[in-house]
Amino acid sequence: MGRRFVEQLRDGDQIEDVYLATDKQLRANRNGNPYIQLELRDRTGGISGRLWNAGENLFRSFESGDFLLVEGKVQNFQGSLQVILTHIERAETEKIDLTDFLPRTEQDVNKLYDKLRGYLLRLTNPHLRALGECFLMDDTFVRGFTACPAGVKLHHAYVGGLLEHVTTMMDIADRLVPFYPGTDRDLVIVGVFLHDAGKIRELTYGRAFGYSDEGQLLGHIAIGVEMLTEKVARVPELTGEAFPRELLVRLKHMVLSHHGTHEFGSPKVPMTPEAMLLHGIDMIDTRMHMILREIKEDRNNSTAWTPFNHTLQRRVYKGGANGDLYAPAPDSYD
Amino acid sequence: MGRRFVEQLRDGDQIEDVYLATDKQLRANRNGNPYIQLELRDRTGGISGRLWNAGENLFRSFESGDFLLVEGKVQNFQGSLQVILTHIERAETEKIDLTDFLPRTEQDVNKLYDKLRGYLLRLTNPHLRALGECFLMDDTFVRGFTACPAGVKLHHAYVGGLLEHVTTMMDIADRLVPFYPGTDRDLVIVGVFLHDAGKIRELTYGRAFGYSDEGQLLGHIAIGVEMLTEKVARVPELTGEAFPRELLVRLKHMVLSHHGTHEFGSPKVPMTPEAMLLHGIDMIDTRMHMILREIKEDRNNSTAWTPFNHTLQRRVYKGGANGDLYAPAPDSYD
Amino acid sequence: MGRRFVEQLRDGDQIEDVYLATDKQLRANRNGNPYIQLELRDRTGGISGRLWNAGENLFRSFESGDFLLVEGKVQNFQGSLQVILTHIERAETEKIDLTDFLPRTEQDVNKLYDKLRGYLLRLTNPHLRALGECFLMDDTFVRGFTACPAGVKLHHAYVGGLLEHVTTMMDIADRLVPFYPGTDRDLVIVGVFLHDAGKIRELTYGRAFGYSDEGQLLGHIAIGVEMLTEKVARVPELTGEAFPRELLVRLKHMVLSHHGTHEFGSPKVPMTPEAMLLHGIDMIDTRMHMILREIKEDRNNSTAWTPFNHTLQRRVYKGGANGDLYAPAPDSYD
Amino acid sequence: MGRRFVEQLRDGDQIEDVYLATDKQLRANRNGNPYIQLELRDRTGGISGRLWNAGENLFRSFESGDFLLVEGKVQNFQGSLQVILTHIERAETEKIDLTDFLPRTEQDVNKLYDKLRGYLLRLTNPHLRALGECFLMDDTFVRGFTACPAGVKLHHAYVGGLLEHVTTMMDIADRLVPFYPGTDRDLVIVGVFLHDAGKIRELTYGRAFGYSDEGQLLGHIAIGVEMLTEKVARVPELTGEAFPRELLVRLKHMVLSHHGTHEFGSPKVPMTPEAMLLHGIDMIDTRMHMILREIKEDRNNSTAWTPFNHTLQRRVYKGGANGDLYAPAPDSYD
Amino acid sequence: MGRRFVEQLRDGDQIEDVYLATDKQLRANRNGNPYIQLELRDRTGGISGRLWNAGENLFRSFESGDFLLVEGKVQNFQGSLQVILTHIERAETEKIDLTDFLPRTEQDVNKLYDKLRGYLLRLTNPHLRALGECFLMDDTFVRGFTACPAGVKLHHAYVGGLLEHVTTMMDIADRLVPFYPGTDRDLVIVGVFLHDAGKIRELTYGRAFGYSDEGQLLGHIAIGVEMLTEKVARVPELTGEAFPRELLVRLKHMVLSHHGTHEFGSPKVPMTPEAMLLHGIDMIDTRMHMILREIKEDRNNSTAWTPFNHTLQRRVYKGGANGDLYAPAPDSYD
Amino acid sequence: MGRRFVEQLRDGDQIEDVYLATDKQLRANRNGNPYIQLELRDRTGGISGRLWNAGENLFRSFESGDFLLVEGKVQNFQGSLQVILTHIERAETEKIDLTDFLPRTEQDVNKLYDKLRGYLLRLTNPHLRALGECFLMDDTFVRGFTACPAGVKLHHAYVGGLLEHVTTMMDIADRLVPFYPGTDRDLVIVGVFLHDAGKIRELTYGRAFGYSDEGQLLGHIAIGVEMLTEKVARVPELTGEAFPRELLVRLKHMVLSHHGTHEFGSPKVPMTPEAMLLHGIDMIDTRMHMILREIKEDRNNSTAWTPFNHTLQRRVYKGGANGDLYAPAPDSYD
Repeated sequence: MGRRFVEQLRDGDQIEDVYLATDKQLRANRNGNPYIQLELRDRTGGISGRLWNAGENLFRSFESGDFLLVEGKVQNFQGSLQVILTHIERAETEKIDLTDFLPRTEQDVNKLYDKLRGYLLRLTNPHLRALGECFLMDDTFVRGFTACPAGVKLHHAYVGGLLEHVTTMMDIADRLVPFYPGTDRDLVIVGVFLHDAGKIRELTYGRAFGYSDEGQLLGHIAIGVEMLTEKVARVPELTGEAFPRELLVRLKHMVLSHHGTHEFGSPKVPMTPEAMLLHGIDMIDTRMHMILREIKEDRNNSTAWTPFNHTLQRRVYKGGANGDLYAPAPDSYD
Repeated sequence: MGRRFVEQLRDGDQIEDVYLATDKQLRANRNGNPYIQLELRDRTGGISGRLWNAGENLFRSFESGDFLLVEGKVQNFQGSLQVILTHIERAETEKIDLTDFLPRTEQDVNKLYDKLRGYLLRLTNPHLRALGECFLMDDTFVRGFTACPAGVKLHHAYVGGLLEHVTTMMDIADRLVPFYPGTDRDLVIVGVFLHDAGKIRELTYGRAFGYSDEGQLLGHIAIGVEMLTEKVARVPELTGEAFPRELLVRLKHMVLSHHGTHEFGSPKVPMTPEAMLLHGIDMIDTRMHMILREIKEDRNNSTAWTPFNHTLQRRVYKGGANGDLYAPAPDSYD
Repeated sequence: MGRRFVEQLRDGDQIEDVYLATDKQLRANRNGNPYIQLELRDRTGGISGRLWNAGENLFRSFESGDFLLVEGKVQNFQGSLQVILTHIERAETEKIDLTDFLPRTEQDVNKLYDKLRGYLLRLTNPHLRALGECFLMDDTFVRGFTACPAGVKLHHAYVGGLLEHVTTMMDIADRLVPFYPGTDRDLVIVGVFLHDAGKIRELTYGRAFGYSDEGQLLGHIAIGVEMLTEKVARVPELTGEAFPRELLVRLKHMVLSHHGTHEFGSPKVPMTPEAMLLHGIDMIDTRMHMILREIKEDRNNSTAWTPFNHTLQRRVYKGGANGDLYAPAPDSYD
Repeated sequence: MGRRFVEQLRDGDQIEDVYLATDKQLRANRNGNPYIQLELRDRTGGISGRLWNAGENLFRSFESGDFLLVEGKVQNFQGSLQVILTHIERAETEKIDLTDFLPRTEQDVNKLYDKLRGYLLRLTNPHLRALGECFLMDDTFVRGFTACPAGVKLHHAYVGGLLEHVTTMMDIADRLVPFYPGTDRDLVIVGVFLHDAGKIRELTYGRAFGYSDEGQLLGHIAIGVEMLTEKVARVPELTGEAFPRELLVRLKHMVLSHHGTHEFGSPKVPMTPEAMLLHGIDMIDTRMHMILREIKEDRNNSTAWTPFNHTLQRRVYKGGANGDLYAPAPDSYD
Repeated sequence: MGRRFVEQLRDGDQIEDVYLATDKQLRANRNGNPYIQLELRDRTGGISGRLWNAGENLFRSFESGDFLLVEGKVQNFQGSLQVILTHIERAETEKIDLTDFLPRTEQDVNKLYDKLRGYLLRLTNPHLRALGECFLMDDTFVRGFTACPAGVKLHHAYVGGLLEHVTTMMDIADRLVPFYPGTDRDLVIVGVFLHDAGKIRELTYGRAFGYSDEGQLLGHIAIGVEMLTEKVARVPELTGEAFPRELLVRLKHMVLSHHGTHEFGSPKVPMTPEAMLLHGIDMIDTRMHMILREIKEDRNNSTAWTPFNHTLQRRVYKGGANGDLYAPAPDSYD
Repeated sequence: MGRRFVEQLRDGDQIEDVYLATDKQLRANRNGNPYIQLELRDRTGGISGRLWNAGENLFRSFESGDFLLVEGKVQNFQGSLQVILTHIERAETEKIDLTDFLPRTEQDVNKLYDKLRGYLLRLTNPHLRALGECFLMDDTFVRGFTACPAGVKLHHAYVGGLLEHVTTMMDIADRLVPFYPGTDRDLVIVGVFLHDAGKIRELTYGRAFGYSDEGQLLGHIAIGVEMLTEKVARVPELTGEAFPRELLVRLKHMVLSHHGTHEFGSPKVPMTPEAMLLHGIDMIDTRMHMILREIKEDRNNSTAWTPFNHTLQRRVYKGGANGDLYAPAPDSYD
């Protein structure tokens, strides 16, 4: 029988399953008896749990961030569900299906990866094609690239999000390049491929989404340039030729400048047509993803507006819901 | 007998009156019994109410934003007053005096309106005077203009606030124009009249102050220009002449530029003496209103400073209250 | 025989043709004899002209901005060509082919216009399709829309530039919308159509490119919203139905917000998917146009970089030209 | 017979008068013979002068900034007037009427000063009135205050400009204070009086307008606070009482914050009603003065716009001059 | 026997000592019985206290900010310690050792002060040395300067913090000046001495750290310049000579510009070598102090990062703690 | 006999020497005869040269940027010196002493390099010391590092400038670290060493100072991180151990963040004590160098201020020169 996800729990349910434990606290109740409170999470959400009469030993037997095998009963408390726990113990990690604990793309990762491969292997420029192959031959890279989210919270924040973001951008690049003669299609495709590749080391996505220390200190732009430098060194093994120096500099420039301005953390602004187009497509895909997700995730159907989004610094108009489109002139105040 | 306003309620009072219900919640007490908690509001403030042992049916019988006829008893709970409710039901809207629920100007709206009319009907320029008349002949416009607040929270946030703001600015304009020869007094007066006129559609002020959908999407500047364009089309019916094109462009420019800079949402900066003066007077009246209101509304008399105001990004000095004007040199730390 | 354009003039040529006169000055030579100096322009460039021993009467017989019929001889002076004039007189405007004096799109305007019509007439939404028809039925509008540049200097600064910009954006919108389900394709297409429509009144493009007074005071955003409002009023004549109010507000919002931020002169930021996509496509097309034009117009082939562009605040990398890609380590300073 | 001012000079005039010499240079003509070139200025403008066959001794006999007695003849050279000098020598300063060399207010300085005195001597608050008297009793201060311009270039850049600026602001303050109950009129009047008083040491205005070293290093805000501190120390001699500490802090705060924001060089933002009103009035008077002067000084009547003003970062619309208010739809490009 | 500080309290302790009372509230328990809740503070931290069955008279017998003699028992409540009070009364201020209630520098204030004196008394320039003496002879100034914190929260926020900040900067200046010939060492030392001297009036530090009214309205920059002006007037009594005017202007300029930019509240930017160096040293010392304190105060040893610091707008990397330096490639999601 | 440098040339000198040719132009004189005009440069400055009656063949025989052997005579023309050339031909590069053509540090490069080596070879941390050795063993790197300027124009813009900047910063770091316990001295020293190392590829300094293509597209920050990555890979050959990963990330972070903010082109802000200190020392050394150079290079001794510096956005006060420190109160305007 399958797992009961957090979003499936109902008042009165008896549970015995593995959850990710966060925010553990040892508290005392009114009578001074200690109890453990923690948050149980999986990819569908979180629920509060309490284990009464818990000693310090049990409390120290696990850490926030561990997976716990828990037993208990769901109950409604002051309008919210919580779990009254009867047993907790650390779960063995090898038995855990990590995909239960992180949100993932709704698209088929294999198909997305095939699309990515297709774009790279059909490149005309032999050096760039060989560069693509070098990345694809690196299993660790591929495993990270197909798993990594594109962001922790802002956009595509789910397993496979980076791959989804990149393949969508490749499709768009494929359609836009013809409108701008003088723009090198192969460079744009490879720039799209690599612009966020550094995120596979910048972010952590083993259990929950976050930043690695290296990620916070260096950022995905610097990491991505380094990954590119490493792989380019391998290309001559495939092509028998030195990788053209100008081509490499152009590629690095695209990664460095893809945020568009200094203010957004790019140490260089786009100075080639390919870098400018990459920035534009990235901007469109991230902004459209955010704005459409805001609409989709806003479950409160009776309002015309989403809640305020701090990244976008605005609310998004969903429309269609109420009669306040035009302000009614008040009938009278008399 | 008149209504008991929220600010008049005292511990032990028995109440039976209509209030605006907001923030309704269904909660469970320690024993798991459900109760309704909500906020009861009128123009003088808000008070928390609880109705014990309330079922879901009652909870669903009204919405936040409805007017409720409530019965109950006021009591002091942990230093704050609350109402223990014994009965609630939706009130019929037609019996409600809306002025009980929205703050309104302390000035006489009729006198303010007469002043407005006076300024407009005594304009020298026949086209501008006829334009003023066209607005004054529009009952819906006049009802909105005399009721609308000038802002939701920032300044003049009460019924009649827009009218009060505009007539004060007209008085000021009347006194300042003579200092700046080459500035067209009639244009300034009409610019003052119309600069915020779009707010009567941007804002909602039927029950509580907020933004209409149109208001959020277009803003009062664009709406105001549109209202001006509509009314100008009627002027030739009064004057028998085409409205001068340059005059119209100058007026639109004043509405568009009255926030002074792009950063504050004006798509154009003031480029005529009249537009510059309008912006300056608007700036003075809104800032002075905010700063004086901060002082007036700060009931904590034992401090020399108001709380931090986020719009102004500062605290305001009230003064006169304490001995900390100069930092006392500490006597000794030995 | 066709006209000799400025860029075709060579040392020793005898000319007799019409040019646009600008920067006229009356000067005195070393002997104190007065002469007229002016700039002769057509769409291919400008050349300096001098008419010796010219009196004040001749000088006053025309204005800068007039078309002149000139006779003279081209000569090389200190490395630059100039014309020694023997005769000038004002030319009759009706005999002038204006297209000789303003740069124009290299594309076929008729085909671009057919594309525009195609997009508008095939819209699914009957209200939006009728709105498109109302614009297309307005000959003055169509004449302006097909002639107007998209900018005075920044991008698409040539006759037909606006049409070229808009049809390219329509093609792009057509390809991008499918990637963003939940985005209304018809709204995006009409938003693209109208976002810069106000430029046909903001700009002047009869003889040279510039801003109209109305354009400087109101800007194409406010003018465009006004044009939209006017035409929407005609739609019910075609559809027999009122134009949906929410649809209209969404369209106006797109025009108002298409610059993306307050700083760039939009009084509102994009708050719908359609407005966000419109802004993104506009950004890409204007930036790509500028960057590719910089490369194309930089005729100095011996450099790897274009001159500094003040709008982009950068130089653009053309590449491929020299050995300085990597800085050579200096051999020695000994 | 009076002086011939620069703006009165005509081709062929013989002159013998004193001018301020600036930009002196020693040059060589085509034959290698040295000549002196300099600019001759008075308050109405400047004209170029040349003295042929001048030796180094003569060149070194005066400095830029000296007054010279010059003899020569005015002639037209390449469309501009210049003076061919026959004699120059340093003029004795005591014989010079300085008012000939600096622009000065068109108003009557004595009347302006009487108005200033009137405002200060009629103050209700005895401490502030005595403070005003202390300033008025200081002849050096009064001489500087009545002579000083309010700016070097930006606004009121003429002798008496500061006095004119301050008295206009006093008149405005007098009219605005009644609209804002809770605002101390006396404080506002004295704040207006002192807000720019530091300019009498910040600026130099003996011969030409500029900044003193102290002015550049400290600024008129810091200097003004120091002047206030000095004079306040004298007030008890008049009143027999200590100057109230809070009143002094409020006054200093007004001077410190009158530029409104950090960006414009105020170390503090206005935090009292009086400081806010002072800032608002100052902003209006400086901006209106600049915009109206732009219009007035633009003698080129054939344009609807003034030249670009770098302080305002805009051109100003004068209007009324041409047919480009609305962009003409081009008749045809065929 | 010494005082029991808050950080020494343990579950079960009986206390009878003086604490600073803050945040006092009168609340009612579940049975409606009133109780007093307050925060008891000393320089080591704060602890919550409750006194059951307290009447309004007792509640009104003291204010937040008073010192209270309290008796009670420490107990653990829900994981935090609190004090169940049995008696409270206002303490006589003269018996209180203020150093128990404010954090203070860990360094020896006497040694820091000796260092300060040493720097000032060994200055070469006799005017500057005499200026230093004038400050040192002023007991009130010295008492404030040695007690004052350098900030309320940001850096060196403890008694003696200003002295510590200044003497460290003097040591640094002493070592840096030799690298920049042309920089006047004496001026830099005195500039360091005085740059924040205005804080002894800007801040309050008698019982808790805060801003005086004068401090909020004028700021330490303006106050510091005023203090300098006052003391300079005394210097001739020691030297028998006028204080050199340029020297004084340079010193004032250093105080005025030490924040480096307008945005950070300096009305002038540094325009002399000495002012620039002062700004640089101040920037280093404040930033380094903040960043090192973040690391030191973050007691949660199991993380590699400090919490987000709002002044620095960043988290600080402590390092060394976990395995997330590099993001682990997830083993598998299958 | 040594070379005659440009700054040594005097009217009437006969010259026969090598100069760097720039700005070459072919012009025609009044009679239509062509002549060559060019600028002759060496490290002491530039002088204009003309070669009359020059043909196109000669003109095409060299490029701007070539070294020319020139013969001619210096003469004074309109107050400026110029060279009337009698012969020019391309000089053989191998015979040229490049140090004649680029400004170089006034310090002894060998001593500076010894200091650098000393700091690196005495590092305590074996990994960092070995890293330093790896750089020092790379002759190409050392040649570049000792020759490269620290900037093209802004600061240390001369051969050896980078080395001078870095060694000064090492000295300063050496003295400052002890004030900030918890800061790793070795990391700071190596961070100082490498922070601008990327400039040896970012800049070109073979003949004149400029940017390489790679430098413009990637910037010295990204290049420097790449150089560090390359060299770190060699360290285990010396130490026999892997380079500690955290140490490497901390070093890269220092290079990436040394500009302090995004606005100045750092993709990351300083998040460790060592990165913060590096940024502070860099800021001090660059700013002090600029401000002192402004004073030193301003040869116009009669003014108290340097010309406006666009990088610093200010003029620098030299002082001591005139009587305008305080504005003189004008004697009288009567």
